[in-house]
Amino acid sequence: MNKIWKGRISGNTNESVDEFTCSIDIDAKLYNQDIAGTAAYTIGLHNVGIINGQELKNILTGLVKIKKNIENGKIKTGKYEDIHSLVENELYHLVGEPALKIHTGRSRNDQIVLDERLFMKNAIVDMLEKMLNLQKAVVKLAQKEKGGVMPAYTHLQKAQPVLVSHYLLSYFDKFNRGIRRLIRNFNDCDYLPLGAAACTGSGYGLNLDLLKKLLKFSVLDSNSMDVVGSRDYMADFIYSCCMIMLDLSRFSEDLIIFNSQEFGFIDIDESYCTGSSIMPQKKNPDILELIRGKSSLVAGNLIQIITLLKALPSTYNRDLQEDKKIFFNALAETTSSIDMFSRILPNIRFVNTNMEKAAKSGYMEATEMADYLVSKGASFRNSHNIVGKIIKYCMENQAGLNSVPLDILKKYSPLFEKDVYESIKTESCIDSKKVGCGTASSEVEARIREAAGKISQIEKDVKSLAGRTTDLKEIIAIAGK
Amino acid sequence: MNKIWKGRISGNTNESVDEFTCSIDIDAKLYNQDIAGTAAYTIGLHNVGIINGQELKNILTGLVKIKKNIENGKIKTGKYEDIHSLVENELYHLVGEPALKIHTGRSRNDQIVLDERLFMKNAIVDMLEKMLNLQKAVVKLAQKEKGGVMPAYTHLQKAQPVLVSHYLLSYFDKFNRGIRRLIRNFNDCDYLPLGAAACTGSGYGLNLDLLKKLLKFSVLDSNSMDVVGSRDYMADFIYSCCMIMLDLSRFSEDLIIFNSQEFGFIDIDESYCTGSSIMPQKKNPDILELIRGKSSLVAGNLIQIITLLKALPSTYNRDLQEDKKIFFNALAETTSSIDMFSRILPNIRFVNTNMEKAAKSGYMEATEMADYLVSKGASFRNSHNIVGKIIKYCMENQAGLNSVPLDILKKYSPLFEKDVYESIKTESCIDSKKVGCGTASSEVEARIREAAGKISQIEKDVKSLAGRTTDLKEIIAIAGK
Amino acid sequence: MNKIWKGRISGNTNESVDEFTCSIDIDAKLYNQDIAGTAAYTIGLHNVGIINGQELKNILTGLVKIKKNIENGKIKTGKYEDIHSLVENELYHLVGEPALKIHTGRSRNDQIVLDERLFMKNAIVDMLEKMLNLQKAVVKLAQKEKGGVMPAYTHLQKAQPVLVSHYLLSYFDKFNRGIRRLIRNFNDCDYLPLGAAACTGSGYGLNLDLLKKLLKFSVLDSNSMDVVGSRDYMADFIYSCCMIMLDLSRFSEDLIIFNSQEFGFIDIDESYCTGSSIMPQKKNPDILELIRGKSSLVAGNLIQIITLLKALPSTYNRDLQEDKKIFFNALAETTSSIDMFSRILPNIRFVNTNMEKAAKSGYMEATEMADYLVSKGASFRNSHNIVGKIIKYCMENQAGLNSVPLDILKKYSPLFEKDVYESIKTESCIDSKKVGCGTASSEVEARIREAAGKISQIEKDVKSLAGRTTDLKEIIAIAGK
Amino acid sequence: MNKIWKGRISGNTNESVDEFTCSIDIDAKLYNQDIAGTAAYTIGLHNVGIINGQELKNILTGLVKIKKNIENGKIKTGKYEDIHSLVENELYHLVGEPALKIHTGRSRNDQIVLDERLFMKNAIVDMLEKMLNLQKAVVKLAQKEKGGVMPAYTHLQKAQPVLVSHYLLSYFDKFNRGIRRLIRNFNDCDYLPLGAAACTGSGYGLNLDLLKKLLKFSVLDSNSMDVVGSRDYMADFIYSCCMIMLDLSRFSEDLIIFNSQEFGFIDIDESYCTGSSIMPQKKNPDILELIRGKSSLVAGNLIQIITLLKALPSTYNRDLQEDKKIFFNALAETTSSIDMFSRILPNIRFVNTNMEKAAKSGYMEATEMADYLVSKGASFRNSHNIVGKIIKYCMENQAGLNSVPLDILKKYSPLFEKDVYESIKTESCIDSKKVGCGTASSEVEARIREAAGKISQIEKDVKSLAGRTTDLKEIIAIAGK
Repeated sequence: MNKIWKGRISGNTNESVDEFTCSIDIDAKLYNQDIAGTAAYTIGLHNVGIINGQELKNILTGLVKIKKNIENGKIKTGKYEDIHSLVENELYHLVGEPALKIHTGRSRNDQIVLDERLFMKNAIVDMLEKMLNLQKAVVKLAQKEKGGVMPAYTHLQKAQPVLVSHYLLSYFDKFNRGIRRLIRNFNDCDYLPLGAAACTGSGYGLNLDLLKKLLKFSVLDSNSMDVVGSRDYMADFIYSCCMIMLDLSRFSEDLIIFNSQEFGFIDIDESYCTGSSIMPQKKNPDILELIRGKSSLVAGNLIQIITLLKALPSTYNRDLQEDKKIFFNALAETTSSIDMFSRILPNIRFVNTNMEKAAKSGYMEATEMADYLVSKGASFRNSHNIVGKIIKYCMENQAGLNSVPLDILKKYSPLFEKDVYESIKTESCIDSKKVGCGTASSEVEARIREAAGKISQIEKDVKSLAGRTTDLKEIIAIAGK
Repeated sequence: MNKIWKGRISGNTNESVDEFTCSIDIDAKLYNQDIAGTAAYTIGLHNVGIINGQELKNILTGLVKIKKNIENGKIKTGKYEDIHSLVENELYHLVGEPALKIHTGRSRNDQIVLDERLFMKNAIVDMLEKMLNLQKAVVKLAQKEKGGVMPAYTHLQKAQPVLVSHYLLSYFDKFNRGIRRLIRNFNDCDYLPLGAAACTGSGYGLNLDLLKKLLKFSVLDSNSMDVVGSRDYMADFIYSCCMIMLDLSRFSEDLIIFNSQEFGFIDIDESYCTGSSIMPQKKNPDILELIRGKSSLVAGNLIQIITLLKALPSTYNRDLQEDKKIFFNALAETTSSIDMFSRILPNIRFVNTNMEKAAKSGYMEATEMADYLVSKGASFRNSHNIVGKIIKYCMENQAGLNSVPLDILKKYSPLFEKDVYESIKTESCIDSKKVGCGTASSEVEARIREAAGKISQIEKDVKSLAGRTTDLKEIIAIAGK
Repeated sequence: MNKIWKGRISGNTNESVDEFTCSIDIDAKLYNQDIAGTAAYTIGLHNVGIINGQELKNILTGLVKIKKNIENGKIKTGKYEDIHSLVENELYHLVGEPALKIHTGRSRNDQIVLDERLFMKNAIVDMLEKMLNLQKAVVKLAQKEKGGVMPAYTHLQKAQPVLVSHYLLSYFDKFNRGIRRLIRNFNDCDYLPLGAAACTGSGYGLNLDLLKKLLKFSVLDSNSMDVVGSRDYMADFIYSCCMIMLDLSRFSEDLIIFNSQEFGFIDIDESYCTGSSIMPQKKNPDILELIRGKSSLVAGNLIQIITLLKALPSTYNRDLQEDKKIFFNALAETTSSIDMFSRILPNIRFVNTNMEKAAKSGYMEATEMADYLVSKGASFRNSHNIVGKIIKYCMENQAGLNSVPLDILKKYSPLFEKDVYESIKTESCIDSKKVGCGTASSEVEARIREAAGKISQIEKDVKSLAGRTTDLKEIIAIAGK
Repeated sequence: MNKIWKGRISGNTNESVDEFTCSIDIDAKLYNQDIAGTAAYTIGLHNVGIINGQELKNILTGLVKIKKNIENGKIKTGKYEDIHSLVENELYHLVGEPALKIHTGRSRNDQIVLDERLFMKNAIVDMLEKMLNLQKAVVKLAQKEKGGVMPAYTHLQKAQPVLVSHYLLSYFDKFNRGIRRLIRNFNDCDYLPLGAAACTGSGYGLNLDLLKKLLKFSVLDSNSMDVVGSRDYMADFIYSCCMIMLDLSRFSEDLIIFNSQEFGFIDIDESYCTGSSIMPQKKNPDILELIRGKSSLVAGNLIQIITLLKALPSTYNRDLQEDKKIFFNALAETTSSIDMFSRILPNIRFVNTNMEKAAKSGYMEATEMADYLVSKGASFRNSHNIVGKIIKYCMENQAGLNSVPLDILKKYSPLFEKDVYESIKTESCIDSKKVGCGTASSEVEARIREAAGKISQIEKDVKSLAGRTTDLKEIIAIAGK
């Protein structure tokens, strides 16, 4: 194995050591970023006279070739220690001596941060696009289910009737926070780490503003020791993934329960279910279960990056190499889960008859009845007690609240009048919740309209972020000007 | 125990159940927020006619009294189930019937979110102030140690010489990210949850804008089911705590190592050390070790809140009660660790003679020597190899790089000239790093100046956040107008 | 604050440092163990002539007094740094000079390990007793519900009919593994750490076998550096707690779902439920939710102890002080959850009519029907396919499998005969599972009998472990002989 | 994709669903176990007459072929959903109809548990063998370094002088606990899960004792619902991995610090180090850093399996599919880290001159001097104070404890005599620690001898465990008899 770090030591490491320390099987995923970063950096070296015009031209052409060769599978990545060595060595095969200059004034310590940040910016834009699809699916479903009512649960006990759309929009709010975090993550990793070199800074009078422009970063980092040793951008992003997965795990849990025969609230299209190898009648919500399970993986990824960083001495330590495993795992599980959720949602049918039936049983109009008494002048706490007693009566007599005769009601409180029956209808229960966050149908409709507006705003934002990512082609184009 | 939730059930729970389900020993800490929230809410109820003028006056007076009684230890909190029950019941003792109205249109489900957010806004301001103290201590130390040089390490191996101030400022950048997260946390929990009630919204035509103004929130929440079941604001904050603790753990690790007799880089004042019960010579850096240890606690708190939320069905489930234990623990450990770190820093003396001696050994000028060859026209990779060989020579001959005669150097590369000795002086190594993030003394001085500017900007920001918190007195004052 | 470690340093630490480094509010819980350990150790010092007979007598009397004073609240623990300082200082007040000898040849580093292990042995016995109560409650319920049938679920979808007792016994097996782990934990912390002193061993020719006997340990530790720096016994125990909590969280999840109105499988006695402050009809399974939530806390405790130990240098570091917070939290949450679960179980009524009804719908006899075809000579995979088609037919015709006429069945497979109806009865489905781990009633009855046998064996084991714990009184008694 | 679970549903799942739900890329690693398990199970089906003699013969021959084909890369695994489908379908291609019988009376739910346990038994034996190599390397080094002395540290501050061998043996004790856990893990997963089928048990009168014998399990499981839903064996094993990694992380941390130029205690052979791409002088302990980093990964794996199981409903849920990712990751990182550690240890040279020099400075004889005073009749606490003062004197006069003249010593305590100088020699400090766990050279030599004995005992135990694993060949051989 050809090492670029042979200095005072021979570099003839034990073979098992090579295998143990190599990271190429993981960081090969960063080839695009490493090549783009090297292109920009070489332009920077040319700018300060380290590399001449012809060398620059050759190197850029070489880098384009290497990219192609990797994509065509013509390069055996396995024989290199890491992606940086691969690029430098392959470039040497293609352009000779000038390749030996590309590491001037930089180190793998700042280079890996650069690669990770470039990759992450792309990954965040991709994830945001998937989140947008998910949001659209949520809002579309909320729109479609506009008329439907269902029970809202607390403690998995029937609480109050609610619009199905209102329930669905509760996830719109959750996912919006997820989107907000991702956008911040993008901005927080939009710092150019080049110039930090090994840990104390680069010494060739590099024009970092030029590099920043070429690589489309917004800010320069301000302390080299911090740059090479910190991984906040990675922890922050994995945390964001974890929170999205938590929301998906809760949505999954709801739907798995709603999908039980006992609830019978939803029906998932066969094409999004699997069966059993032994029980012929089975139609299982495997996708939702897998997403719920995957949330555990990403939670573990978060603790991995945290434990990795805990009590690590300043600047670069080799432990940090493991950050990529953690990152790529969290990224893959989260991206595929978001994507799959946005796909399964339109394949879920709400069984409105069952939901409505459930919404009309279980004494869920009790709070409304108490509110009724308040409207007649009672205090809420007393009303609460009175209605509690009426429910006991109902249970003993197997009656619904709306079927208790007025004279009986009056025994519990003289405030009851005939209009109580109107006020405790399911529809009244729902439409009385006329606050911005409430389930009244007028409010929910307003929220759906707002949601559409929010989505188009986010779409614009994401498009703008996409414009702040870059690749080899763009860099070469800018350099050409 | 007097329960406010006796409805259809008797409320005569088993005694062991009372003990198991009560949260008063934890949530009593929220008394200030629960009382302030109740005051504002009562004003809101008055605004829609549920409570009349006299009742309002009595209730507000009662709330002031309860606050005082709690602070004077006159209320036995233990006999109540939670802080909400305590306030409602104590108020009943003081003002009678009107107390039974204060729960109209709200639930403990939205109330606890309100209390937590109010508390958190205060807690964040407090933590930010402590972070500011820490930043000031860092910058002051960086200023004080301006002349000092030390080795920068990677892999805990000597890497390159660096200014002590540059090393210290690397933590300024880290802590700045911590501050940025906290400020976002403040804004992210600055949403009024009232109106959500149990889970579907409140039904009394409450003027939420009035409540928002009274309680100094910036935004109204938009989905009741989301409000009562989400704890993002809490997870986000604990994550921020965790990241601050990670930075402190790394700073501690550095200093513990620097404090070893073998490094001998720092000397901690006796008043910030402890000894051994058995070994009379010991002077241990216990504070730094404890902070490093406490970082583990907060990492665990983060996974606690995450695991708590994982796969929980929508809206409120009683599991959420445990969030307060997690939050208060993370808050206490983080706040005290930040505070203690800002106190110990001024009590650390850098032993410059030792640091400088260390900075001048270990072939740390090797990169500079390679850079020298580059400046004479060699490629970096070849220069790197040449210097590697010279170091082997040095090791065999127990020489320093700067003591190898020029004729020997020339054997390794004809590019060496007399000026090489000047260029590899420690001071040259440092001052050549003239990039924004580099250790050149001019750059570091510029960073110190900028840091002072950032601190005063943050001070202003924090002051402005402080103005967005509230308490009972302010609410009553506003109501009085 | 009076420090026992004043050596070369003054001990006049900064007040905030005292507060930050003190652990007395946590380790005061170890007073019993610290006193018992000190008694035994003093006897050991007497044995090698460091302490004379009169001094020993005075010290033992003094220790008895200190124990009583602590229990009567006569000692203000707050003014001491930790429990070891408290005991040494209080003893000095009582007996003067001889008290200054009790630390001879030991250190707080080995003393805290001793205290923790002594405490843990007691705690494990206590937890085992609670686990036994839980097991008894499970078996009792399994016995009581003997006749009942219910659906077994996979993927929360109806799978096959099963005996309620069989379902309950699945937790017996889980809890048995929990018990097995705890017993191992006891044995794994049954090592005497004394003699390790600060980290290299004690130098007074102590008779460790005497100390082992006095303190009822089974084995001597074999490396002092390992003793003072390892916390395996603690991590192991917290892991065991975590696994018990996971089992309880799953049992809780089952029961919370069974308790929903939609399932309606169980009814929890009112005295073990709570209501809602706003919704009068609510009867919530709070205890089960809290236990489910607490499982998250203990999972976090596990990661706390692990992160604490990660990459800590050998032997004692002050970080380890935080272990006690972690341990006491995990212990308290787990113990109370086990206890509460054993209390709620007898207060759960299985609603057999609902369960049975559920067990007879949902095509759960499908596997049995496939097995029937196998018994007639078909291959299982083909049978599985045939039955799948019949179920489609049933769904289209809203029929149950048992109501499809034979001639129709024969269209799907000529192997069907009249006896198929008998073979797919719910009872047949259950009783055909005649393997040791199957739900056939004969098997389940055998398992219940075996469970009773296992319980009495464990009772004996726990009693024997209890005999291997000790306290001050016993130590003094042995010393008196 | 050919699904074995097509029942009532078509099985034409969406393509993205196939990709999302398939596990073949992970569970293909279980091919050996799935084939062996199927062979044994087929023999069992033959035993109860489901499969005739010729069919059995064909199937066994087919299974041998499939194994070979997989190993030769002749089977494209990607087109199957999981390893079970692969084997059943490939078998069908080879032997036709009889292949459709092999799933009779079993389910993928019990089959995957079988595969995992069979795999785990092998993996544990393999890991134990690697742990044995590690232990041998530790003991060999302890033997080699017998004469060497070094400082023992607490709080990373010099504490007391200690033998290098004693330090090394502290890891022998740690690793022994790791081995003990692994052996238990083996026994705890040595239960036959077959017979559990989907969740309620198998219905064909299978002779489980025959299967147990064929597959070399020791115990039958006793509850089918527990079998298919529990993963204790996996969590237990990952916990064991995590604890081993923690010990390795601490050993690494020690060695990384010892390897710093400032400590200079060890020298790692070049073939086990790497250099820097920019700094020619670097020789970094990357292997140790990577192992320290990898400990974080495994800690995360533990929390992954725990979070996965938290609050999962009883029996099998698809979430459990993710267990294999977690398991294989933890297994790979732990196995390679143990292996690498056993390889690097013999390549570490202890620089005895540096260690000894360090052992003789830093007032580490202070405890011994206090012990000296105790031996002359002083109390330990007073002696501790006296020596503290002498150290202050030494620091002010830049003297060592052993160079303070007797008359000065006598000013601090009249008990000092000439023999004090002998008693505080480094050698005396070490050899006075004559307890079983102490560093006295006679004790350490005894421990080394014992360690050798323990190793050979464990070697025997591991060999015996190896005899309790099985493979296809052995099963066919037994069946042939």
